[in-house]
Amino acid sequence: MTPETSENEIPQETGEVLEVDDELMQDIEELVRSKSDYLLLNIIQDLRPEDIGHIINRLTPEEGVYVFGMLPNTVASGALLELDEIHREIITTRLPQERLTEIVGEMDSDDAADVVGELTEERAESVLETMNVEESSQVEELLRYDENTAGGIMAKEMAVVQKNDTVKKAISVVRKLARDIKNIYNVFVVDENGILLGAIALQDLLLYTPNKRVQKIMDAGYKTVTTDVDQEEVARLFSKYDIVSLPVTDTAGKLLGRITVDDIVDVLEEEHEEDVARITGSVSGATTQHSPVHMAVLRLPWVLMTLFLQLIAGVVVHAFDQTLSQVILLASFMPIISAISGNTGLQSAALIVRGIATGQVDYRRWWQPLRRQMITTFIVGGACGIALGCIGWLWHGTPLFGVVVGSSMFISVNFSGIIGTVTPMISRSLGFDPAITAGPFETAFQDIIGITVFLSLATLMLQWL
Amino acid sequence: MTPETSENEIPQETGEVLEVDDELMQDIEELVRSKSDYLLLNIIQDLRPEDIGHIINRLTPEEGVYVFGMLPNTVASGALLELDEIHREIITTRLPQERLTEIVGEMDSDDAADVVGELTEERAESVLETMNVEESSQVEELLRYDENTAGGIMAKEMAVVQKNDTVKKAISVVRKLARDIKNIYNVFVVDENGILLGAIALQDLLLYTPNKRVQKIMDAGYKTVTTDVDQEEVARLFSKYDIVSLPVTDTAGKLLGRITVDDIVDVLEEEHEEDVARITGSVSGATTQHSPVHMAVLRLPWVLMTLFLQLIAGVVVHAFDQTLSQVILLASFMPIISAISGNTGLQSAALIVRGIATGQVDYRRWWQPLRRQMITTFIVGGACGIALGCIGWLWHGTPLFGVVVGSSMFISVNFSGIIGTVTPMISRSLGFDPAITAGPFETAFQDIIGITVFLSLATLMLQWL
Repeated sequence: MTPETSENEIPQETGEVLEVDDELMQDIEELVRSKSDYLLLNIIQDLRPEDIGHIINRLTPEEGVYVFGMLPNTVASGALLELDEIHREIITTRLPQERLTEIVGEMDSDDAADVVGELTEERAESVLETMNVEESSQVEELLRYDENTAGGIMAKEMAVVQKNDTVKKAISVVRKLARDIKNIYNVFVVDENGILLGAIALQDLLLYTPNKRVQKIMDAGYKTVTTDVDQEEVARLFSKYDIVSLPVTDTAGKLLGRITVDDIVDVLEEEHEEDVARITGSVSGATTQHSPVHMAVLRLPWVLMTLFLQLIAGVVVHAFDQTLSQVILLASFMPIISAISGNTGLQSAALIVRGIATGQVDYRRWWQPLRRQMITTFIVGGACGIALGCIGWLWHGTPLFGVVVGSSMFISVNFSGIIGTVTPMISRSLGFDPAITAGPFETAFQDIIGITVFLSLATLMLQWL
Repeated sequence: MTPETSENEIPQETGEVLEVDDELMQDIEELVRSKSDYLLLNIIQDLRPEDIGHIINRLTPEEGVYVFGMLPNTVASGALLELDEIHREIITTRLPQERLTEIVGEMDSDDAADVVGELTEERAESVLETMNVEESSQVEELLRYDENTAGGIMAKEMAVVQKNDTVKKAISVVRKLARDIKNIYNVFVVDENGILLGAIALQDLLLYTPNKRVQKIMDAGYKTVTTDVDQEEVARLFSKYDIVSLPVTDTAGKLLGRITVDDIVDVLEEEHEEDVARITGSVSGATTQHSPVHMAVLRLPWVLMTLFLQLIAGVVVHAFDQTLSQVILLASFMPIISAISGNTGLQSAALIVRGIATGQVDYRRWWQPLRRQMITTFIVGGACGIALGCIGWLWHGTPLFGVVVGSSMFISVNFSGIIGTVTPMISRSLGFDPAITAGPFETAFQDIIGITVFLSLATLMLQWL
């Protein structure tokens, strides 16, 4: 009836995007195998670049190269950023160099720097040489920063105005940028020397008359970081102050770039993987995407180190051979005591590592978390000691045996809690990553202590057992 | 010389904000203790609400109540959201009810719902009754959703226009909102029934002439979720598609709210804590902020369960008493074998849990990760087996002893790798959280298997040892 009814259809039609499910994936695999380019392109047109990236990850590298070759540059640049290490390496190696330059040219400077940074030196040079001069100098600048710092994750694309500019001018700056980049959330205000003075959120730009000076309406207390700040520290700032776009300056305060919250989401996920990897004694960056042999090579040094540390526990056991051979039932309680005290130590360590990372724990006030942890492990150790003591009494038939296993349990759990709490704080105060001491080293250490306490106590009371 | 020089000073002066360091913290503590209200207020005025929240967290609850009472409502609402559980509970309990209503009224609906949801039923009711009707009905709506779903984390505040509205109208909607809420990143377009049709980024609004219809320029393929989607799934969407603001609809497509990326940053941190807690066999939500006794109570059921599982390992050891008493050196190798196979299982499990969470692993194609894991553990187990075999040979003096410990190591590491890979996939396919099977249960299970393999092999070869 009204003309809107027909109009209504248009955007919905053109905007419809396909979701990737197993069925679609199968169709795509079949089309790739039968090289049905036309049908394949038809499907790909209705997909988001991110989804195309994930589809390519599920194809063999060969098939991936083939599909990637069909993509227009703008889509290819989005898809490339979603590829896993293996597919990305093969595709960037196989792609004609001019094509690679075009695709990298479509990216924001931070993503372009990430991709170029992963290429072989020779290939990176040839890409940078054939790129637009402004873009290549931006990428070269970004590559100079450590990849785990604010400088390493910032982008050069941003809306910047001079302190004497008006709101009208700021809007026109945003307009010019808006066609090329997607994530403009604020406009940064600088002085004649490029020193950052403040920022204005886009929504606030709309509040003022066009002739208003930006300097009068900017937020001069806007958070900022220097290029050398660690990316995890940057993530904390985003989280604490609900930031979406953070300006990065040099030590003199000159505006050099900005970090957007999408990069921070990546940092948080990376950090998550690192922490889990450390606690389980593996290597960060080891993912299900690595080749199995590569995974084994990454893991081996850690596993072998754990093996040699555990050997010390073995030597301790050996030292008590006499006691063990007289009361062989003691051997049955060894796995229990070492598992529980290892577990307590790991939990305490994980809690403190996380507390230090979030700022809830201050290692300079080490006695506070230690006191708390000691109370907790006193209760946990007490309960476990009583439980195991009763089990030991019933099993061996003598109350004294129960006393030995129960009190060993209690003592070693308390020891583990203290060590688990103190070691991450010590490594932090020495400037190391506190997470390093959590994990297998912690476990080996707990085993050694647990077994020593247990078998020493047993030896002392041996005459009555 | 130019008038700018003097103008330059103004925003820097007014915008300067204090950073919280130990020195400032000490000053504040002294001022609180001496009840120097005037000086205290002077410092607080130069701080961000988030920082004030963190300062209060470092004070005793009593002192916290005192400082919080001095804050103006707008600052108090920002600070309240940063408080840890303990301080928040005490402050919301002690605050006069009218004051609490005012402070909650200053918050965005999602934060208000979080705070009201934590109050006692009685107090929550009285706050809702005294609030502005529109706000209280929003909060009541949000409280009805599960707190771990899209509905539970969304806010009601958002810029919405009708499909026939113009760009000019959209800008005026943003302007009206911009005075009250901070995070407007896009305008959502709905039809006459409130059904979501698409979205326009603020930066794109600036690109078009005021008379352009929003329907013509909106992104109709904009991602959206329904209220029941799990918050971790929502976080994946933000991460994959670099979203800053995601509309939430009911199943019919009616726009109900939106989620902003700052909430997703919180979700990712929560998820991180949960994963670490599960792997270390603790409880999620157990933080350094809990009272030590509370922590012990939270941990105890897990620790005791681990203890009883490990008891099975003890029973296995007991079954081989004969063998052990004949070759007591075997006991020295028990901790090593159980630690290494436990570690392998934990790593495999953590990798698969993470892979399932990020979508890299599809549990319905369980043979793919399993095959990969088997290759990895074959190599790792082989290397460890050879290393331990040589150690055993040298230590005991007979090659056969080396063969027993080396091959036990090899077999149990491979077993652990398989179990560590398969169990999370099985729990996922049964609808459980795959992370539940990582951690202490895994470890206990590995111990049982490792010890069984080791002592059985030793018993078989006993006659030659």
